[in-house]
Amino acid sequence: MVKFRNLDESPAFRDLLRLGPADLRASLTARAVETRRADAGGGLTFSWAASDAGEEAIDLLGRVAAEQELAEKYRLLASGHRMNTGEDRMVLHHLTRGEPAGKVVRDGRDFRSFYEGERLRIAEFSRKVHSGSLKGSTGKPFRTAVQIGIGGSDLGPRALFLALENWARAAGRTRMAARFVSNVDPDDANAVLADLDPETTLFILVSKSGTTQETLANETFARDFLARRGPSGLDPSRHIVAVTSETSPLARNPGYLDSFYIDDFIGGRYSSTSAVGGVILSLAFGPEAFQELLDGAREADERARSPDPRANPALLDALIGVFERNVLGRPFLAVLPYSQALSRFPAHLQQLDMESNGKQVNRDGQPVSYPTGPVVFGEPGTNGQHSFFQLLHQGTDIVPLEFIGFLENQTDRDLEVEGSTSRAKLNANLAAQIVAFAKGRDAPDPNKRFPGGRPSTLLYGRILDPRALGALLAHFENKVMFQGFAWNLNSFDQEGVQLGKVLTKQVLAGGALDEALESLSRALGVR
Amino acid sequence: MVKFRNLDESPAFRDLLRLGPADLRASLTARAVETRRADAGGGLTFSWAASDAGEEAIDLLGRVAAEQELAEKYRLLASGHRMNTGEDRMVLHHLTRGEPAGKVVRDGRDFRSFYEGERLRIAEFSRKVHSGSLKGSTGKPFRTAVQIGIGGSDLGPRALFLALENWARAAGRTRMAARFVSNVDPDDANAVLADLDPETTLFILVSKSGTTQETLANETFARDFLARRGPSGLDPSRHIVAVTSETSPLARNPGYLDSFYIDDFIGGRYSSTSAVGGVILSLAFGPEAFQELLDGAREADERARSPDPRANPALLDALIGVFERNVLGRPFLAVLPYSQALSRFPAHLQQLDMESNGKQVNRDGQPVSYPTGPVVFGEPGTNGQHSFFQLLHQGTDIVPLEFIGFLENQTDRDLEVEGSTSRAKLNANLAAQIVAFAKGRDAPDPNKRFPGGRPSTLLYGRILDPRALGALLAHFENKVMFQGFAWNLNSFDQEGVQLGKVLTKQVLAGGALDEALESLSRALGVR
Repeated sequence: MVKFRNLDESPAFRDLLRLGPADLRASLTARAVETRRADAGGGLTFSWAASDAGEEAIDLLGRVAAEQELAEKYRLLASGHRMNTGEDRMVLHHLTRGEPAGKVVRDGRDFRSFYEGERLRIAEFSRKVHSGSLKGSTGKPFRTAVQIGIGGSDLGPRALFLALENWARAAGRTRMAARFVSNVDPDDANAVLADLDPETTLFILVSKSGTTQETLANETFARDFLARRGPSGLDPSRHIVAVTSETSPLARNPGYLDSFYIDDFIGGRYSSTSAVGGVILSLAFGPEAFQELLDGAREADERARSPDPRANPALLDALIGVFERNVLGRPFLAVLPYSQALSRFPAHLQQLDMESNGKQVNRDGQPVSYPTGPVVFGEPGTNGQHSFFQLLHQGTDIVPLEFIGFLENQTDRDLEVEGSTSRAKLNANLAAQIVAFAKGRDAPDPNKRFPGGRPSTLLYGRILDPRALGALLAHFENKVMFQGFAWNLNSFDQEGVQLGKVLTKQVLAGGALDEALESLSRALGVR
Repeated sequence: MVKFRNLDESPAFRDLLRLGPADLRASLTARAVETRRADAGGGLTFSWAASDAGEEAIDLLGRVAAEQELAEKYRLLASGHRMNTGEDRMVLHHLTRGEPAGKVVRDGRDFRSFYEGERLRIAEFSRKVHSGSLKGSTGKPFRTAVQIGIGGSDLGPRALFLALENWARAAGRTRMAARFVSNVDPDDANAVLADLDPETTLFILVSKSGTTQETLANETFARDFLARRGPSGLDPSRHIVAVTSETSPLARNPGYLDSFYIDDFIGGRYSSTSAVGGVILSLAFGPEAFQELLDGAREADERARSPDPRANPALLDALIGVFERNVLGRPFLAVLPYSQALSRFPAHLQQLDMESNGKQVNRDGQPVSYPTGPVVFGEPGTNGQHSFFQLLHQGTDIVPLEFIGFLENQTDRDLEVEGSTSRAKLNANLAAQIVAFAKGRDAPDPNKRFPGGRPSTLLYGRILDPRALGALLAHFENKVMFQGFAWNLNSFDQEGVQLGKVLTKQVLAGGALDEALESLSRALGVR
C-alpha cells in the first residue's frame, strides 16, 4: 500500500539536510563526465557530471525516492489512480503515447484506446487536408493551420512546432504552415490574421472546457476574418476544427468542420502529446512525425519506471532539484537550450513546472513547511551568454542550470570562420560554460574573479528531431511529476488561477466592486 | 563632492531594516490608486498603489536616496564622469536622446554632437533607402532589413521593433520589413535567410568591437547568401552596412555600403537609442518614428533628475526594488506587460537588469555583503495567467511584480463577445490580477486560499506608440542605473562574460585542456 507523506517526514531527507554542495572544482573530472550519465530515451543522454549533488547526496536522494515511493507513485498514476486529488481525477497523459503498463478501463471506457482512436482520426484528417481531398469553402487547399488556445493549449504545441520547423524544412517534411493566437489582447489576433488568406486557412480552436474567455474571444476574430472575405463571407463550419472535451459546447457541434477529443484526465500543461498538440503537429509535419514524437516520449516514460535514480534521468533530475531547493535553498532554475529551435521551450517548461508545483499545500490540502516549485526561466545559448549570464557567473545568488545541446544541426548549411564551423563554436561555448560555471577562476582583481561552484546538468543528443523532442518533453513532464510526489503535492490542479478569473468577471459585469479594483479599472479605462 | 559608499553604510538603510511589508489588504485603497502615482514621461504613469513599501518605507528610501546621493550620481554620469570604473569609461547613452544637461566635451569631441550627427546620417540613409535612390546591387529596392548582432545589439532593438510593428501597420508608417539573426547556432541564420530574397535584403551588422564571434560567423552566412544569387553573386559591399566603433575593423571599410558609429561610452545593453537601435528602427518605421522614441526617452530622463522619489518614478521603482531585495529578501522580479507587442520586452529587461547589477563586488572592486541584482523574468498577460501565475499566487515564495498596460489597442479592430471587447477583457484582467495578488482571498479549503500580500507596481499609458515606448525603455534603464548606484556597483561593465570566452577559444584552438572540458567537448562532438 503506497503511503503519501510530506518530504520532511522522510528520514533520509533529514539526513540529507546535513550535507552541503560537492566541491565542483574537484568533482567535475573527465571520469565524472564519462560515468555520471544515463540514457534518457529518444537518443538523449542525461549528464549530472557538473551537479553539486555528490555521490553521497545521490545515495541519500535515492533513499528519499524509496521512502517516498516515487517510482511506485508513477506506476499508480499510470494505472489510473486518482492522483489529481483536489479535482478527484485520474492523470492519464502517459497513455497518449502508449505507456506500456497503461491499460486503464473505467466505466466501460478503455482510455488508451480512446486516445489512440483520436490520434488515428487526426492522422486521417491530416492526410485528407494534405492530399487536398478536404479543402476550404471556396475549393482552395488549406495552406496554413492557426491554433487558437492559451496556456497549455498554446505554449507546449507552439514550442514543439518551433522546435521542428527547420528540421521539417531540411528533411522535406513540411506539410503546412502553422501560426498561433493566444492572448486576449486584440493586437495578437489582428497581427497574425493580417498575413493570412482566409480561403486557405484552417483554424484549430483548442479549449478543453469550451469556455475559455481568451479562446472564445479569439474565435470571434477568426469568424469575423472569414466573414469579411467575399460578398457573403466564407462558411466557418468548413474552416474551423475544435479540440475539446466530449462534454463541451464545442463537441459534435455543426458549427465546426470536425472535433477531436481529450478529457478531464489530460491536464492542459501535460496535453502536448494529446489532440491538443497532435492536430497542429500532424497538419504541419505529417502524422508520421507526430508518431515519432510520441515514440520518443514513450522511450522516456519507460526510463521513468526504474526506482534507481542513476538509471532514471527524470527521477534523478527531480531529486537533484529537491537537493538544490530544499537542502541548498536555491529558489530558481535556469533552462538553457543551446539550440535556437528551442527558443520557446523554456516558456513551456516555465508553465509545466511553476503551474504544477507552485503550491503551498500538499495533496491533502494541508500547508507544507518547506519550499516547493522554483522560479523557472531561460533563453537559448549562446544568446543568454551576452545577456543574463553575467548574474549567473558573478551574481550574489547561485542559480542551478539545466543545459540542453545537440551534436548536429537541423538545417544543412554550415560555414567555417576562423577555423571552426558555427556548430563547433556553439558546442565549444556550451562545454566551456559548464566548466566555467563549475570551476570558476581566481584572479587578483576581485571584479575578474569567478567564484565557480555553480552547478548544472546537461541533456544532449545527436540531433533535435521528433523522437528526441518527444523524449525531451516527457523527461521534463516526468521530472516535474516526481518532484511533486517528493513534495507530496498535487501537481495536476491549478486553483491559483481562479481568483483572478472571478474578479475579472466582476469588473466586466459592471456591478459593485472592491473600491481599489473599481479605481484601478477606471484608471485602465474599463469602467 | 559626491561620495561613493556601500548601501549598508547608509544610516537610513539600517533604519529601513526594521520595517516589514505594508499590509496590502488595508493599504491598497481607491485613495492609494489615486494618490500613489506619478508622471513617468512619454504619456506614462507609474503607480505604486499595490507596492508593499508603505509610506514610512518610502520616506526612509528617500533618505537612502539622499544619503547615497542617487540624483547627484545621475547628474555626474550625464555630465561625463567616468562612472564605468572597471573599464575607466564615461557612460553617455543619455546623450543619444539629448539629455538636457548633457554637453560632454573631451579631447575636442562634443559627444552630444557626435551622436546627433550619427542620427542625422542614419535618417538621411533611411530616406534614400525608402525613396529608392539607394538600391540593391541588381537595381531592386530594398524590402527587408536584417540585423545581425547579439546581446545588446539584438535584444533591445528586436524588442522595440516588435513593440512597434503593429502600431506602424495600423498607422500606415511601415517602411520596410525587419528580421534579426543573433545565435551562433547555424539554424538561426539558415531559418531567417530561407525566407528572404537577397536582391532586396539589406543587412545591418552590429558589433561595437567588430570582433564578436557570433556576429562575424553570421556575417559569413549573409555573405554566402548574397554570393549564391546569380552566376557571379551579389556585391556584398552594396548589401551590408556596419554599426560599430570608429576604431573597429568594420569602420570605414570598403567592404560595407556604409558605417554608423557608436563608441565605448555606450554600453551594449544601453545602446537601443544609439545607432544600434537607430538604423533598424529608422529603416523599418522611418526616422521620424525613431525621433519620437528618443523624445519619449528624453521625457523619462527629465523625470529622473528629481531627488524626490515620489516625483521620479525610475528612482522610486529602483528604491522599491532595494526594499524588496535587501529588506524583504526577495531575489526575483517578474515583468508582466499586458500587451502582446511587448512579448520580447521582458527578455530585454532581463539583460538590462541582470547584466548590469548581477555583481558581487562594488565599483571599487571590493566584495559587497548584501544581495544585489535579482533574477528577472516575464511573459505577456493574459498568457502568463494560464501559466506561471499559479506559483505567483500560491507558491511558497513571494515574487515582486511589475505590470505594464495601455488603454487602447495598436491595431484598429476589436470585437465584443459576451458584452465586452477584447481590450476591456485584457484590462479587466490586469486590474483584477493586481488586486488578487495584493488582497488574496480566504477560503475554508486551504487549496483554494489566496494568501495575498504579493506586491506589484504598474506602468500605464494611453497607447504603445514610439513616444511611450521610448519612455518605457528609459524608465527601466534609469531604474537599473539608480539601483546600481544604491548598491554602489559599476552597472556598466560585464566581466562575468569573459571566462566562458577564454575557455571557448581554448576548445576551438585544439590545444591542451582541463580534462573535464576535454571530455565534455568530446561528448558534444567538438574535439
